[in-house]
Amino acid sequence: MTETGKTVLQASLDVFRSHGMTTIFGNPGSNELPFLAGLGDDFRFILGLHEQVVVGMAEGFSRATGRPVLVNLHAASGSGNGMGALTNAHYGHVPLVVLAGQQVRRTVGQETMLASAEAAALPMPLVKYSHEPLSAADVPRTLSQAAFEATTQPSGPVYVSVPLDDWDQPALDDDELLPQRSVTTARGLGPELEAELIASLNGAKRPVLVVGPQVDAAALTDPKVAEDVTSLAEKLDASVYIAPSPTRCPFPTTHPNFEGVLVPGIKSVRDQLADHDVVLVLGAAVFRYHRWEPSNYLTPGTEVIQITQDPREATRAPFGKAVITDVASAAANLAAGVADRDIRRGEPGSRVMSPAATSAEGMTGAEILEVLNEHVNDSVSYVNETTTLDLDYLERIAIDKPGMYSFPASGGLGFGLPVAVGMSIGAPEKTVVATIGDGSANYGITALYTAAQLHTRTVFIIVNNSGYGALSGFAQRMGVPKVPGLALGGIDFVSLARGYGVPAKQTNNRAEFDAAYREALETSGPVLIDALVVS
Amino acid sequence: MTETGKTVLQASLDVFRSHGMTTIFGNPGSNELPFLAGLGDDFRFILGLHEQVVVGMAEGFSRATGRPVLVNLHAASGSGNGMGALTNAHYGHVPLVVLAGQQVRRTVGQETMLASAEAAALPMPLVKYSHEPLSAADVPRTLSQAAFEATTQPSGPVYVSVPLDDWDQPALDDDELLPQRSVTTARGLGPELEAELIASLNGAKRPVLVVGPQVDAAALTDPKVAEDVTSLAEKLDASVYIAPSPTRCPFPTTHPNFEGVLVPGIKSVRDQLADHDVVLVLGAAVFRYHRWEPSNYLTPGTEVIQITQDPREATRAPFGKAVITDVASAAANLAAGVADRDIRRGEPGSRVMSPAATSAEGMTGAEILEVLNEHVNDSVSYVNETTTLDLDYLERIAIDKPGMYSFPASGGLGFGLPVAVGMSIGAPEKTVVATIGDGSANYGITALYTAAQLHTRTVFIIVNNSGYGALSGFAQRMGVPKVPGLALGGIDFVSLARGYGVPAKQTNNRAEFDAAYREALETSGPVLIDALVVS
Repeated sequence: MTETGKTVLQASLDVFRSHGMTTIFGNPGSNELPFLAGLGDDFRFILGLHEQVVVGMAEGFSRATGRPVLVNLHAASGSGNGMGALTNAHYGHVPLVVLAGQQVRRTVGQETMLASAEAAALPMPLVKYSHEPLSAADVPRTLSQAAFEATTQPSGPVYVSVPLDDWDQPALDDDELLPQRSVTTARGLGPELEAELIASLNGAKRPVLVVGPQVDAAALTDPKVAEDVTSLAEKLDASVYIAPSPTRCPFPTTHPNFEGVLVPGIKSVRDQLADHDVVLVLGAAVFRYHRWEPSNYLTPGTEVIQITQDPREATRAPFGKAVITDVASAAANLAAGVADRDIRRGEPGSRVMSPAATSAEGMTGAEILEVLNEHVNDSVSYVNETTTLDLDYLERIAIDKPGMYSFPASGGLGFGLPVAVGMSIGAPEKTVVATIGDGSANYGITALYTAAQLHTRTVFIIVNNSGYGALSGFAQRMGVPKVPGLALGGIDFVSLARGYGVPAKQTNNRAEFDAAYREALETSGPVLIDALVVS
Repeated sequence: MTETGKTVLQASLDVFRSHGMTTIFGNPGSNELPFLAGLGDDFRFILGLHEQVVVGMAEGFSRATGRPVLVNLHAASGSGNGMGALTNAHYGHVPLVVLAGQQVRRTVGQETMLASAEAAALPMPLVKYSHEPLSAADVPRTLSQAAFEATTQPSGPVYVSVPLDDWDQPALDDDELLPQRSVTTARGLGPELEAELIASLNGAKRPVLVVGPQVDAAALTDPKVAEDVTSLAEKLDASVYIAPSPTRCPFPTTHPNFEGVLVPGIKSVRDQLADHDVVLVLGAAVFRYHRWEPSNYLTPGTEVIQITQDPREATRAPFGKAVITDVASAAANLAAGVADRDIRRGEPGSRVMSPAATSAEGMTGAEILEVLNEHVNDSVSYVNETTTLDLDYLERIAIDKPGMYSFPASGGLGFGLPVAVGMSIGAPEKTVVATIGDGSANYGITALYTAAQLHTRTVFIIVNNSGYGALSGFAQRMGVPKVPGLALGGIDFVSLARGYGVPAKQTNNRAEFDAAYREALETSGPVLIDALVVS
């Protein structure tokens, strides 16, 4: 008997409490039962019906709250099911602590049923830290490390495998030290670097800002970050682009300095940046291209300065001057330090969006965005998984607050539905509007069940073009027009939604969609609209 | 033909030049020939006879120069031979770029002779970054990333595998951007954290400093770091310990505030720190214990503040308040900010060392340290691989400059001889004195060849107790006295040294050793002394 009389489970729960991780997303298996059975009343367990959906909901919850989130998965099979979703959490820098149940410690070596062989190796390279403690006595410390690993920049998912018979072992007296621990990363540019960067920006003839997801993530917990970035753009009279392949919206799309999203191809980016002498990239990789557009990276004479809190984003860039520091302090230092050019392109919020293309044959996808813009709920958050509309989205939807936009960070589908549900659970005061392609929707469809059970405030819009529309576009660009398996049809989303308990309706044109959307905004629980669109 | 007309090899050499990596340590195989054949005249190739020795010499060169170093190894077998040495480079945070030769690109999949299957996975988890570029076109960028990965904190070894037919492929025009890249990590505590830590230190009744290898590594390129740490200790009237399992000497052992090395066991550390209310750990893990001494970590009421530039050292600690930042800025901020208690324990350099134990049967190991202390060359650096003397060493040898002491950071033997040779190559103005146990010496004996060929200024001292003396001590402490294989005998080190071209002599007592050592200090090239000692 130790002095504290606590078990490994009790000491571990104290660690979770100290990190505010008392909401657990999971899908239970036999190995997890002793852990789940011993949770205190202050813990809340959210059930998902498939592990991709569990991880996705946890990501949504973290995006809504800005906090680390505990995910409980079954050993190898359950963890394997969740790994597609981990690709998004990894590139999205989402602090998930995935706790996997392992078989009884002394039986793992003989690979008993549902033992996970070499468990720590399983989720690599999709997690930044992975460990299976070598002793029950090290479980609480490992979980403490895992929470700090997940939240220390670059933040991201981590994985810990714990044998089921560890939980009722005696804890160490010293486990009392774990909830008292802290890990702080020092912040700021420092005076010399600050002066150097400010001189570059002040000396630029046509500076441009390229802002990335780290800015939005930081602004979610510290609104001053958004103010500083806007002020920096205004003082420099700089055009602002969002970095390619955006997973968040880091700049108000309604601001007159906003010029859109950089198209994710080498040549497109070069052309869009060609007129600028100094490019300040803030909180993004340089760059996450997607389309293959052979070209040189830059027009001669372009200076690229990258500020990132992810060291690997700095080291792997093919060009430029990289600075590793937190974007919040950097934005504050630079906004305070640069000279004001005293030019304003208009009032904040004054940017005019061009009208969407229409079609005689029915509603276009871009028209959906116009309808969303016309009926804005005060506290709306958008989750987007319409890969046909990815560039349009941030140029057409009014976004002026942190955390208002989410897109899968690795491009891994099956993100949208569960993230929207998790976000609704994490921020129940919000209306979460999820636009999901009909192809994408099937990867995470079971999240509808959890939305219905918890009566979340989520509007699911299936942007239904009866096929893998983004792939059709890619196939054309790549010169491979005849690809099998790109057409979908015969899926009744209204029936699927009702099957999981979510009220639903289909719309055939803009007027019907407009009416259905307005009705959905007035509904208290989840609603699904199957919006038929023309390509 | 590209605009630049350069090959992948030429573009890659430009990348190495931009990082000052023009000295290459290697042991060639067939895959490496095209790379080695194309080196420019400004590159210098240092041959080692075994890959453990190659990696070790490169570590010594980096320790001497503070710079990243290029290591060229053969595919799987050569890399495998080097992996024991990578354990030390990994824990020693030594920035080595290991470039491994791979078979012809299109033949690797069929696993031709000397192809390395899954090459990037091979050196894990001993490197912080490992990659095999998927195309010749990405080789120069990958090598640029590798150099930045190796040097960005936490610094450490990295691994890149390159197929032999990549080198003469055309480079990209954009490879010209690579030597212009920079990656800078912002530095400093920031005002709020600085104020908080200073308040803790000023409020402490009996503060204590525990300093670690990051301080010495930083001081090597920025001598002000050492001044700041000394000033911090003096102003606080703080005792100073070196953190357990030291791989460098981060504090002058001659300073009156210096109290020795923390013994690497939980109970020993707790007892040594018991009288202190605030423990400031600067530039070290908390803590790298070695001996198993079951105990609670701390006496109640002890506050531990850890400042480290390695995020994982922060997250994995079992207790304490961790701050992730560079130790140089932190030391400067704290030294400038704390209140001076106006107490000095004596002049710098005034610490008195206790006399070494003697024996009627012959010279003791500790007496060797006394002899070294008595005959100090102005510019001596010590490399130590006598595991029987590890604690004694820093308490008995006068060390008052950065970079003066090196010990294997993972405890991996075979470090001492090659590191001493590499250090001599990197700092030819110094006399490098290597004390190596007779057991340890055999792991890296072939380094003597390179020392002889390059006529390095290295004094090799075999501290010869005819056995694995440290293991005998451990076996006693662990209560397992009868262990086979701990006695060595019948090895003639004088003959071995002569076989590799290094002049050598054996000494049987202190007087003989004293004479031999004084003679060695006056010799221009390498010398080996086989110093027989009693346990």
